[in-house]
Amino acid sequence: MPDGKSIAERLAEEHREISVAEFFERNKHLLGFENLQKSLLTCVREAVDNSLDSCEDARVLPNIYVEVKTEGKDRYRIIVEDNGPGIVKRNIPKIFAKLLFGGKFNLKQSRGQQGIGISASVLYAQLTTGRPAKIYSRTGDGKTHILELKIDTAKNKPEIVSEQTVFGDGRGTRVELSIKGKYVRGKQSVEEYLVETAVMNPYAKIVFVDPEGKQTEFPRAIEKLPKKAKEIKPHPSGTELGTLMKMLSVTKSRNLTGFLTTEFSRMGRGTAVDICNKAGINPRINPHTLLREEAERLLAGMDEAKLQKPPTDCLSPVGEKALEKGLRKEMNPEFVAVISRHPSVYRGYPFQIEIGVGYGGDLDPEGPVKLMRFANKVPLLYEQGACAMTKAVASTSWKRYGLSQSGGQLPLGPVAVAIHMASVWVPYTSEGKEAVAAYPDIIKEVKLALQDVGRKLGLYLSRKRRAGEAEEKKQTLMKYAGEVAHAIHAVTGDDEQKIRKQLIRLAEERWNAEAELVPAESGEAEKEREETRELMKEVRKIEEAEEEEVMD
Amino acid sequence: MPDGKSIAERLAEEHREISVAEFFERNKHLLGFENLQKSLLTCVREAVDNSLDSCEDARVLPNIYVEVKTEGKDRYRIIVEDNGPGIVKRNIPKIFAKLLFGGKFNLKQSRGQQGIGISASVLYAQLTTGRPAKIYSRTGDGKTHILELKIDTAKNKPEIVSEQTVFGDGRGTRVELSIKGKYVRGKQSVEEYLVETAVMNPYAKIVFVDPEGKQTEFPRAIEKLPKKAKEIKPHPSGTELGTLMKMLSVTKSRNLTGFLTTEFSRMGRGTAVDICNKAGINPRINPHTLLREEAERLLAGMDEAKLQKPPTDCLSPVGEKALEKGLRKEMNPEFVAVISRHPSVYRGYPFQIEIGVGYGGDLDPEGPVKLMRFANKVPLLYEQGACAMTKAVASTSWKRYGLSQSGGQLPLGPVAVAIHMASVWVPYTSEGKEAVAAYPDIIKEVKLALQDVGRKLGLYLSRKRRAGEAEEKKQTLMKYAGEVAHAIHAVTGDDEQKIRKQLIRLAEERWNAEAELVPAESGEAEKEREETRELMKEVRKIEEAEEEEVMD
Repeated sequence: MPDGKSIAERLAEEHREISVAEFFERNKHLLGFENLQKSLLTCVREAVDNSLDSCEDARVLPNIYVEVKTEGKDRYRIIVEDNGPGIVKRNIPKIFAKLLFGGKFNLKQSRGQQGIGISASVLYAQLTTGRPAKIYSRTGDGKTHILELKIDTAKNKPEIVSEQTVFGDGRGTRVELSIKGKYVRGKQSVEEYLVETAVMNPYAKIVFVDPEGKQTEFPRAIEKLPKKAKEIKPHPSGTELGTLMKMLSVTKSRNLTGFLTTEFSRMGRGTAVDICNKAGINPRINPHTLLREEAERLLAGMDEAKLQKPPTDCLSPVGEKALEKGLRKEMNPEFVAVISRHPSVYRGYPFQIEIGVGYGGDLDPEGPVKLMRFANKVPLLYEQGACAMTKAVASTSWKRYGLSQSGGQLPLGPVAVAIHMASVWVPYTSEGKEAVAAYPDIIKEVKLALQDVGRKLGLYLSRKRRAGEAEEKKQTLMKYAGEVAHAIHAVTGDDEQKIRKQLIRLAEERWNAEAELVPAESGEAEKEREETRELMKEVRKIEEAEEEEVMD
Repeated sequence: MPDGKSIAERLAEEHREISVAEFFERNKHLLGFENLQKSLLTCVREAVDNSLDSCEDARVLPNIYVEVKTEGKDRYRIIVEDNGPGIVKRNIPKIFAKLLFGGKFNLKQSRGQQGIGISASVLYAQLTTGRPAKIYSRTGDGKTHILELKIDTAKNKPEIVSEQTVFGDGRGTRVELSIKGKYVRGKQSVEEYLVETAVMNPYAKIVFVDPEGKQTEFPRAIEKLPKKAKEIKPHPSGTELGTLMKMLSVTKSRNLTGFLTTEFSRMGRGTAVDICNKAGINPRINPHTLLREEAERLLAGMDEAKLQKPPTDCLSPVGEKALEKGLRKEMNPEFVAVISRHPSVYRGYPFQIEIGVGYGGDLDPEGPVKLMRFANKVPLLYEQGACAMTKAVASTSWKRYGLSQSGGQLPLGPVAVAIHMASVWVPYTSEGKEAVAAYPDIIKEVKLALQDVGRKLGLYLSRKRRAGEAEEKKQTLMKYAGEVAHAIHAVTGDDEQKIRKQLIRLAEERWNAEAELVPAESGEAEKEREETRELMKEVRKIEEAEEEEVMD
């Protein structure tokens, strides 16, 4: 057997530090770069999401220009330009050529969440075509900064290939990337992504030029930005001991009550003192001096205390009016129902569900309904089966709303269902941000919203059906009104024309009233509530079985 | 509208660098810490995998001790100790308390692949219980180094809480972690993980003490380590342009032929010169001076040139004998069939499929077969549905091998199927390392191996059935042999006892021969090959449609 020391020494020599850029370069499939089609979409999506985020941050109605140009076989140049605030020159390299850099790791509703997306696209570009990303930025100081950037993957640091400053009026950012990709139409395409983006961001104007030079415009449907999303502090529920200990060690507060009221959201002085008492710790103690055991008691005290729910002004929903306009504009349906529910909370994170349903019009009458999923206004085009939203739709009984459905599947019909989850922290199932994890609280909110729009849709379809039936009866009777009038005239001797007119008027009144009739709903509503209760019981059972969140 | 410059400035101030430790702390569900049950399993698995890797690296027959101790409600202490080479003191902090550090990012078959696992477990421990990890290491120099470690998540750097050195003989490493978790039995439990580990690592001895103090021993079934896995260089197929450019810029070779033969696996001088010629580049040029366009031509040249397959001595399969012993020892089946196929290649990465099938014995006769999936000898207990191995089993026709099966499902019966993929780079579908991505080349190899063991199983079951039928006939005839003999005696007058004995002997000979009969197989084999061809055609179609790998 060889000498033991030398084995440990030899193994030690093999070890080295790996940068996060190297890690994701090798594991690029984890970030949405599994194949050429998806990679192209991912690059467009990351750039457009960034543009929309920065316009909203600056309270500017977004004008976004997107172009995909052919550069060779499986080679494309992606160009995305916005009218946002621009990026200050010193930050451009880090934002575009350093993974895990950004303002996006806070508790704030935004499209980007991880500080990875656009740098990952730059990494993918240089990996597949060897070309640097080209960034143009104007911040309103009369200059355009133009930088060509690569990522030094060994160090996860930006490498500036070239830079120049020229004259430039106005504000905005433009990104250009050369990538290996595949341009497709239809499902999971750039076009689908842009159509859905236009539905959920109707205050944005988007112009798209495809590889054949064809220009499509998605006009603005509403001239008002949604309300601004505020950043919030963490809520005590869902805080792990390790996180609490870290917060205690770095806080600037000099006493424990100060710490609790400053670092957590919605924590008043009274609650803070109450928590300290429950934990048996002096509220005036310096937080830096707390031992692990004391932190543990503090956490238990927070669990026990009555806490206010987190604030919800941190959310920026699309709103019912805007959602309806978005749906009408892009899908042209004959009927639309929308609901924007009140904010709710999972694991201490506020979130809000909005749903729009469209029927008929340009929608395909064959096959399952068109399900559009959105998280913080971003369309989710992959992993539909793994998503909490899909589960909620499939587990809703659509037959009672007039759609056919086989057990546990999506319902069928010319229907589009757009589901939006707005949250300060969306629990994606992977870095690729393609599906929302199946938290019971989230599924429940989606179900309740689906039932709301489902009822409205059911009412419309029922009326439509009755109106159709009444019209048919009317037509039939009209056909025979002459004969009936003639028969009555033969018996009573009254004026034949007059009888005919009276008959038609009476029938019309009757049928119109019938068509207006609302189906008896009280029993249905109770059934619905019962089913939701049953569902939630089952969900709780699963939850208990797992005894922990899918993520927190 | 507020001043534009100040908006860009304000946004710039919000930006900061996020460490990879912070990222995974917040996204711990991506690393296998979704819920308490899985988190406990993940911690045990990461520690045991590391122990097995280091023992094999040092060519030591592994003795692994695993203990899970209750420390409170949902609190456990995980202890894993091995007889490996130990870790040199200076490397202990980085290996256990720094993410993305390790010798595991090379092209070498090992259980660890990302340099994340054990540090992620330390991170999870400190996050959920606030406690540091405790590491004991002896490298054979008469000392035991004992370190308590935490991770400074803001910097992704180790923080040494305490360290001491005491006397200690021999070699080995011991890890202790206090975590929030849930201990379960049965499916996806620590026990299941250890049983399956014992099946695929029969040269390891594992002792397990559960939270109730019950000790289970998994003895060694074979006294020989599998052959050593060698590290290899990348193969030209599957190399991206960006990677090639990086390699060109850092190589120590002074000319292009030298670069090609030194940096790639299986690249001879002749092939190297041929590639340079095809690319129209002087083979004696300094690699550092190559332009992007030239690198692109070089890559095209490599695509065009006839390349040797990558070497396969980098693989360390378990072997048929060891696999059979492992299955027999843990499952006690009445019949076992195994196959260790020849190495194959996907996207330039060598890999090898091994399959063992057990029938009867302790195996559950009800329900679907027990499918055990392994990657580099590590059991995969989650995401069964998403795994290439599951897809291969479900798409094989098991009826012809005597098992019942409904279309596209796992077959039914008292059968265990253990599938092992050994590779220098396993294409996991997520960092959690729970499923193998569905590459056509991998599915094909698994299918072929399944058909091999399936045929053997079918033969056994067919014989068993015939033997049963023959025995039944024999018993029936035995029962009537006396009467028949009596009848013959009455007709011929021969000795009744003699006739009876002769009858029985004749029958026995005939039935035994029948029971030995092999079912006609030639037609079946052809059908099988035809089906595989059809499958591969379909798989190719999908592949063409995607025109790209799932990962590379």
